[in-house]
Amino acid sequence: MSQAQISNDKTPRTERGRRTLRKLLDAAATEFADKGFHEASISGITRRAGVALGTFYTYYDSKDAIFRALVSDMSAGVGRAAREALDPGMGALEVERVALRAFLTFAAEHKEIYRIIDEAEFVDPESYRTHYETIGARIEERLQRGGESGEFIRGLGAPEAWALMGMNVFLGLRYVIWAREGDPDSDEIAKRANALLASGIAS
Amino acid sequence: MSQAQISNDKTPRTERGRRTLRKLLDAAATEFADKGFHEASISGITRRAGVALGTFYTYYDSKDAIFRALVSDMSAGVGRAAREALDPGMGALEVERVALRAFLTFAAEHKEIYRIIDEAEFVDPESYRTHYETIGARIEERLQRGGESGEFIRGLGAPEAWALMGMNVFLGLRYVIWAREGDPDSDEIAKRANALLASGIAS
Repeated sequence: MSQAQISNDKTPRTERGRRTLRKLLDAAATEFADKGFHEASISGITRRAGVALGTFYTYYDSKDAIFRALVSDMSAGVGRAAREALDPGMGALEVERVALRAFLTFAAEHKEIYRIIDEAEFVDPESYRTHYETIGARIEERLQRGGESGEFIRGLGAPEAWALMGMNVFLGLRYVIWAREGDPDSDEIAKRANALLASGIAS
Repeated sequence: MSQAQISNDKTPRTERGRRTLRKLLDAAATEFADKGFHEASISGITRRAGVALGTFYTYYDSKDAIFRALVSDMSAGVGRAAREALDPGMGALEVERVALRAFLTFAAEHKEIYRIIDEAEFVDPESYRTHYETIGARIEERLQRGGESGEFIRGLGAPEAWALMGMNVFLGLRYVIWAREGDPDSDEIAKRANALLASGIAS
């Protein structure tokens, strides 16, 4: 490990450090979602987190740095939520249904995710692109595995993965962020999207 | 028509007025896409349009007003591009393929559309929501008509419409805005998305 890497490595080594880092990221999510990146401040984040201003700099160098870390933390959270909901015994199609339901649940518990990821397009375009490319690549792998196991048709690739990702993102936008009285619940939405994915809509 | 409506009605009545309005909107698209809403200026827009600063106020009251008009103009542009590509003789499934191809072509000719619609989420949330709700409602109608004609299964509704809209938006993001060397062309993307829509991916 080079000297530069050592001096930039602010990963906490203790349980207490990890808890403080978590508090800062959660506080940053609220601060950025409430105020937007430009109006948000480091002191706003530390106040929400209930930690001293100086503590912030133990973990991050700047508002940009914690924003970048937050986008990456939310990407990881989406991935983790899906993984935790999955089971090795599930079929390829069931995996997609359960992954979408898990994403909708995650978004309902972290409604700020849309605003923050979407603002990354302007504040940190590289993070924005990485977020979708990472999720797209993960979906593409699942589609290909499903093709190899014979559950999906063969030859699925990036176009189908991005189509599926777009479906999921827009279903979350409509049924979580813009939810209306009387809407179908997440379970029903995931079932209907899964039916479309399984056999399409031609009669 | 009330007095208030008359005095707020800045719709041009002459062909020349309509051309100036078009120039202002096109210049605004470039200015907002280049600089973002906050850095963009009315003088930047009139300079790009090649019209006097005072002329701007014949048409719009503020930077906010032209931004809002631009989002609505782009929404209309997306709808028009799809309509112009369609033909009364087309089947319901073909309509979806041709509408997606027309959208991808429109986006390739107006790459600023993603940045501007996405920035509306922050600058003018009402326009942002109206944009997607309008397109979603249009797709939902097409799906229902397809159900009535027997080409689509019955009972399709908003969830399928938002899923389809998300597919289209994300395919544009990946294959137009983030296009890479060697990518399939718009025609091929529209065919693959249409195959998914027609019969799904289960084998």
